[in-house]
Amino acid sequence: MENRVYNFSAGPAALPLPALKEAQENLLSLPGVGISVLEISHRSQTFTEIIEEAEANLRSLLKAPDNYKVLFLHGGASLQFSMVPMNLLRGSGKTADYVLTGSWGKKAIKEAKKEGAVNVAWDGAAEKYNRVPEQSELKLTPGAAYVHITPNETIEGVEFPAEPETGDVPLVADMSSNILSKPVDVTKYGIIYAGAQKNAGPAGVAIVILRDDLLDRVPSDLHSLLDYKVMAEGKSLYNTPPAFAVYFVMLVTRWLKNEIGGLEKMAKINRDKARILYDAIDQSGGFYRGHAQPGSRSNMNVAWRLATEDLEKEFIAEGKKRGLFELKGHRSVGGIRASIYNAMPMEGIEALRKFMEEFKASH
Amino acid sequence: MENRVYNFSAGPAALPLPALKEAQENLLSLPGVGISVLEISHRSQTFTEIIEEAEANLRSLLKAPDNYKVLFLHGGASLQFSMVPMNLLRGSGKTADYVLTGSWGKKAIKEAKKEGAVNVAWDGAAEKYNRVPEQSELKLTPGAAYVHITPNETIEGVEFPAEPETGDVPLVADMSSNILSKPVDVTKYGIIYAGAQKNAGPAGVAIVILRDDLLDRVPSDLHSLLDYKVMAEGKSLYNTPPAFAVYFVMLVTRWLKNEIGGLEKMAKINRDKARILYDAIDQSGGFYRGHAQPGSRSNMNVAWRLATEDLEKEFIAEGKKRGLFELKGHRSVGGIRASIYNAMPMEGIEALRKFMEEFKASH
Repeated sequence: MENRVYNFSAGPAALPLPALKEAQENLLSLPGVGISVLEISHRSQTFTEIIEEAEANLRSLLKAPDNYKVLFLHGGASLQFSMVPMNLLRGSGKTADYVLTGSWGKKAIKEAKKEGAVNVAWDGAAEKYNRVPEQSELKLTPGAAYVHITPNETIEGVEFPAEPETGDVPLVADMSSNILSKPVDVTKYGIIYAGAQKNAGPAGVAIVILRDDLLDRVPSDLHSLLDYKVMAEGKSLYNTPPAFAVYFVMLVTRWLKNEIGGLEKMAKINRDKARILYDAIDQSGGFYRGHAQPGSRSNMNVAWRLATEDLEKEFIAEGKKRGLFELKGHRSVGGIRASIYNAMPMEGIEALRKFMEEFKASH
Repeated sequence: MENRVYNFSAGPAALPLPALKEAQENLLSLPGVGISVLEISHRSQTFTEIIEEAEANLRSLLKAPDNYKVLFLHGGASLQFSMVPMNLLRGSGKTADYVLTGSWGKKAIKEAKKEGAVNVAWDGAAEKYNRVPEQSELKLTPGAAYVHITPNETIEGVEFPAEPETGDVPLVADMSSNILSKPVDVTKYGIIYAGAQKNAGPAGVAIVILRDDLLDRVPSDLHSLLDYKVMAEGKSLYNTPPAFAVYFVMLVTRWLKNEIGGLEKMAKINRDKARILYDAIDQSGGFYRGHAQPGSRSNMNVAWRLATEDLEKEFIAEGKKRGLFELKGHRSVGGIRASIYNAMPMEGIEALRKFMEEFKASH
């Protein structure tokens, strides 16, 4: 039938097959409705139920308390790079602290500087972003507007094992690449945001989970679509939302709840999947060399090098022949990267591990 | 099989069935690729071909010259309400002229005022937005930053039969609800923008067609995702685009080219469809009363009243029983509205006309 490959793309990335199948089955008409989800009014009862279930699933999976808003916004995480400082830094007279552990954090800082003072509280550049900092290394600003982290950096494959402590200063996290991969204590965060296209759905929607007292800090001069207050008051329906992407987030979160059984179980599967690949690297006698330091290794993106670029090219080409797609590392780091989000099945990991062993044996 | 109804929703709205069927067929894997369009990297060769075909189809259908950029942006038309004045009004010291012919124009003005001086060059409020202005009624500002129009207002059902003359001042148009419904002389416009979810695809992407000399006016302090220059230089791939919505625009524009045969033919079909409904209104002896004045009638949204609100409610409920969905007018105008974009087939129009006659006969 569909003849699908194992897709190790960093994002957009593999999605759960049951969700894809349900979307496919109902693409001409939602059950009993007679209208496709691609055509249905966002003010209809049917769509209201879809967006409410997506929110309820996220709340339940993440145990998000009632004093947090769950929003579905346009523009992906990249627009959040701008919206966070527009809403929380602009005109505040404060400084925003950014903990810089990789490429996405750098992009977030670039936009934040357009809105006010930015302090880079730690920068992993000297070590080529191969680890996250210890708490004692952070140079945090007392009374900062917020502290921003990227809990998982997809390009470098480094992940925070736990949140840094920021006291009363709101912690803001770009969780694009590890949201829903494990349980998270939402109450430790002021804002969690995530582009959906890695772990939560297709490209085109950002999930924003926001502690509601922060809405009091929003300046009054923002454009409507860039204003958390407007979007929260409109329950993400101030304008037409990216409806299909919201629908698909509903399907993915339903799959996580009902078929996986929640985030504790998902986390165990993800740890097991990642361990298989890191073991293959560690036990290769130096044939494969991991980028991230062991304490900072990502369970979502496993990045490694081979001895030469030619060998890496051969690895990628040979893998593709076996149905292992998108193993090329990002140009800024090079080498190999296997992105193994929630939807990557254990069979794909086993196929990759087997290939790694055979490739090593034959070279 | 799918048991679809006639969907007269104002947007998101009915989509061409062949496009829905192709998307459905390939939802688990693009042909020969092994990866769903929902999962595929936006940097892949496959997606590059998709976005390039979407652009090429739009260029060919609209005969857009080479000095126009064709962009696919996040946030729908509502974010363009902000991006247009951010990019063309902010810091210019100029005034932007807005021709106000209905509800959407009002929203555009609200955002523009956040960026600079706005002159409402004409306001149809006194006549409840039931017509577009004559050229002689426009109070245009010499040397304005731009003149903004809403060529078709979905809520009031009024459409410009032709563009106003603006001399050297760039004409900017929110064409969300009539793009691709008829040929347009793109060279008369500085910017054409449109949320896709009425005539061009599903919700989640805005099409922006922009004369490239206007990029020289873009201020240097804009956020990346809100900066036409950044988005044009990145060919709409500065960040992950709303990939599925772009793919669907490709399918819809391919349908327009290959199955409909271009915009001249589409325009004739649309005129014929609209005429049937306006004739049913005009020949009802006052039982149905059209909102828009004849010279300003929209070919996309036909809005009318019945004698009482109770009768209107009955009409809507009875229509729904016959598979004629979403006929309720917007709360700000009331009454009945039939949105009959490109994808509404003649069979749907005939079914509605027949129902209108029978409902009248029985009341």
